[in-house]
Amino acid sequence: MDKKIAIIGLGLIGGSLAMALRGFEDYTVVGVDRDESTLACARARGAADVVTKDAAAVLAEADVTFLCLHPQGIVDFLSEHRDGFKSGSLVTDVCGVKTAIMAASHVLPPEVDFIGCHPMAGKETSGIANADKALFTRAHFILTPRTSSRAEHVALMERMAAHMGFRDVVKTTPEQHDAIIAYTSQVMHIMAVAVCDNPDLFSCRGFEGGSFRDCTRVAALDVPLWTELFSLNAPALTAVIRRLEDNLRSYRETIERGDRRALADKLEFSAARKRRMTFEE
Amino acid sequence: MDKKIAIIGLGLIGGSLAMALRGFEDYTVVGVDRDESTLACARARGAADVVTKDAAAVLAEADVTFLCLHPQGIVDFLSEHRDGFKSGSLVTDVCGVKTAIMAASHVLPPEVDFIGCHPMAGKETSGIANADKALFTRAHFILTPRTSSRAEHVALMERMAAHMGFRDVVKTTPEQHDAIIAYTSQVMHIMAVAVCDNPDLFSCRGFEGGSFRDCTRVAALDVPLWTELFSLNAPALTAVIRRLEDNLRSYRETIERGDRRALADKLEFSAARKRRMTFEE
Repeated sequence: MDKKIAIIGLGLIGGSLAMALRGFEDYTVVGVDRDESTLACARARGAADVVTKDAAAVLAEADVTFLCLHPQGIVDFLSEHRDGFKSGSLVTDVCGVKTAIMAASHVLPPEVDFIGCHPMAGKETSGIANADKALFTRAHFILTPRTSSRAEHVALMERMAAHMGFRDVVKTTPEQHDAIIAYTSQVMHIMAVAVCDNPDLFSCRGFEGGSFRDCTRVAALDVPLWTELFSLNAPALTAVIRRLEDNLRSYRETIERGDRRALADKLEFSAARKRRMTFEE
Repeated sequence: MDKKIAIIGLGLIGGSLAMALRGFEDYTVVGVDRDESTLACARARGAADVVTKDAAAVLAEADVTFLCLHPQGIVDFLSEHRDGFKSGSLVTDVCGVKTAIMAASHVLPPEVDFIGCHPMAGKETSGIANADKALFTRAHFILTPRTSSRAEHVALMERMAAHMGFRDVVKTTPEQHDAIIAYTSQVMHIMAVAVCDNPDLFSCRGFEGGSFRDCTRVAALDVPLWTELFSLNAPALTAVIRRLEDNLRSYRETIERGDRRALADKLEFSAARKRRMTFEE
């Protein structure tokens, strides 16, 4: 019998994962969702080899299960189905915070492995209708294995990442992940929404350049999802926001003082950091 | 005799304008620069119909003159060559601030027209080597005509914009331009450099998503140019930075309080503004 990968939740990320995983080695990809219209769309788009509503039946046979739900949905699903996963199987997820998810995974019995996962990709639209098997091309695939995770499960995750087109696989701890992601992803979303709160937003048409379109692109975010993600990572995120406020204030005060020499020095410092970052990529 | 367009300064913008203007109606495009290696590169790339070092000779015959220098360079050039422009000709520029440039243009004699111009395009690299005739595709072409500017000169600017591939022509006052540009362009650059000042910059490799790459793209900026642009627009820019600091602090305090309902309300407010902005584009 073929091996099975179960994708629980066929939203943008789950749907895209299912599409990108089709044809991986000798695995059958089974997509699971409880919403009828999502299932119909997934079927119409050929998002998975099999599409079904029956999570319990799929879990009992799945060798790998991807939990592609909102953060609280993942926590609840793990708790509800703790005894329903196939013995010896691997469970993973796609959540943008990892400490809370890794903690929740401890409800699983010892014979079920769990490796936290964060595919660093997304877009401003959600749902299976916007899923895209090319979504992960050149993106980072971040893993937070348990110390007890089986080596063959880590290797399996790496082979799946390569099949889906990810640029690389990065292994880290949940705590390190959450601290860094507050900077590289969460605060980018906070900046984008903060920029859109400016009263000039609707009078600036005709004056936007590439930098404005790029920065505000992610502002039309999935509100319930990001409310959870920000709240679950509040200490790291608020520290990064505070540092950004400080850096902006420092630039503002330098410009207010009219000290062009100091402004040029500050810009040279920052621009050199960016060039070094880009150069070393 | 053919009509002539003079491009003074063959950097990224001047070089790209020269390339994009070639073939416009019956005009000859003459590129002017005082740097020998820039002239050699412009010749090698076929950036203009004619390339020369002799600004004075070109100005005397040019029907349109684009000043593509740094802000202070434009001010100095206008002052130095005030009596050298062809009578009845049009002088324009490409500077990212307009109030200071329009004021400086009053050194010109009354028989020389001046229309301020800001092509809303750029990239993170500078110089003729990076010039690209497609740089302006789908960008906004902003004009700040004088109240006394001749209608046929405004119409000529519009035809040139269409030839170069701009998406539209937006006419406004210098003061309105500078207030709005502080928001849509200048503060985006301040955010990008402020983000790069975070001490985690070099340890975040492997954790960047599209939002991080997009936001920091413009941080490797041309320091002397942006020092001038920020300084010449200090009151408008510092007001926008202060508002952004306030909006970020408001988000931070909401997250610190742990009030998920209030956070969701704030995110919904901002995301709806972004969606409305995008929808109405």
